Amino acid sequence: MTAVHGYSPSGNCHKLRLLLEQLGRPYRWIEVDSSKGETRTAEYLAKNPNGKVPMLELDDGRILVESNAILHFLAEGTSFLPDDPWQRAQALSWMFFEQYSHEPCIAVARFICGWTPLDSPRRADLPRLRERGHAALAVMERHLGTRAWFTGADYGIADIALFAYTDVAGDGGFDLSPYPALRDWLARVRDTPGFVAMPAPSPENAALIAAST
Amino acid sequence: MTAVHGYSPSGNCHKLRLLLEQLGRPYRWIEVDSSKGETRTAEYLAKNPNGKVPMLELDDGRILVESNAILHFLAEGTSFLPDDPWQRAQALSWMFFEQYSHEPCIAVARFICGWTPLDSPRRADLPRLRERGHAALAVMERHLGTRAWFTGADYGIADIALFAYTDVAGDGGFDLSPYPALRDWLARVRDTPGFVAMPAPSPENAALIAAST
Repeated sequence: MTAVHGYSPSGNCHKLRLLLEQLGRPYRWIEVDSSKGETRTAEYLAKNPNGKVPMLELDDGRILVESNAILHFLAEGTSFLPDDPWQRAQALSWMFFEQYSHEPCIAVARFICGWTPLDSPRRADLPRLRERGHAALAVMERHLGTRAWFTGADYGIADIALFAYTDVAGDGGFDLSPYPALRDWLARVRDTPGFVAMPAPSPENAALIAAST
Repeated sequence: MTAVHGYSPSGNCHKLRLLLEQLGRPYRWIEVDSSKGETRTAEYLAKNPNGKVPMLELDDGRILVESNAILHFLAEGTSFLPDDPWQRAQALSWMFFEQYSHEPCIAVARFICGWTPLDSPRRADLPRLRERGHAALAVMERHLGTRAWFTGADYGIADIALFAYTDVAGDGGFDLSPYPALRDWLARVRDTPGFVAMPAPSPENAALIAAST
């Protein structure tokens, strides 16, 4: 059975769980706590030299990494990825936006708040990350002002990619109240058939988030 | 005719020039100097709210952004993107690696060296960017130790995406001598039919690079 190596409270990992659940496709989840160095063992690095989660492992041992490349591979031939070449291009465009302009600000701010000590020097990065994260949220709000989903007429993998860390942006200190269209879109995603929420962080991480925001 | 809005010394922009030249496909290049705020005008933001180059504009006014999404769109149905689903997935995986683990270190280090004043506070980021950039180069070296190209048996868009900033990594202070397989691959890319080199930075930017590295 296809295996996903992932850290449950990671948005990049949860993307795969959400799509696989919504596709109704069987999979095995192998928990890898990247926050405790489990992606830096010799065994893990032999499979993914870049030392990150998630990682997809097929029955025959073939490996695919990078969350959005995995989403795209799994969604091929399903309603989660349109057939139309232009719509497919727009889906990929939003997924590259997510990894370049969104995740490195919004996910990283959440990581700093919840997964580093309260006196970590990395906390000095938070103001700049929040400024850039709000710029990404504003781009999304503008798109959603006139459209229900990120690609064409239907919910799909661009929505899943962008939902993952937007839905928990509050953990990184992002107030979503200035973005009404975005908040409506988050609610629409939560209402899609087979939706599953991301598991909560551990009590230790949740306490750090609460103390940070 | 398809138009590319781009800043010539940007690797992300040069990716598109290189692919279009190698495809022999006609295009119009519209120079947009992102280093002088030309992606932040009202006119530009109306087309790309994220305010970045490159941007592809079709004859009918449709817009596609994100360099690697544009490469993928332009390469569809050509030898630069394989038909095999697994090879296609690996191509996308390397392209997401490029935008997440490579460009934000190697391209950003080059930008700081060549496009910010010698007393810029951003220069304090260089040691961390170089450490992370070398980690990305080591991942590439490991792959290239046993393979000629990044996807399957042939040169393709994953190679183009990764070539762009690797070939000018020296501008950001990266010494490539520890990466013999990577240097051989750079030479193979330069030998591909229709290859065009990235235009040199302006004398002003070149002088900053020379003073920084």
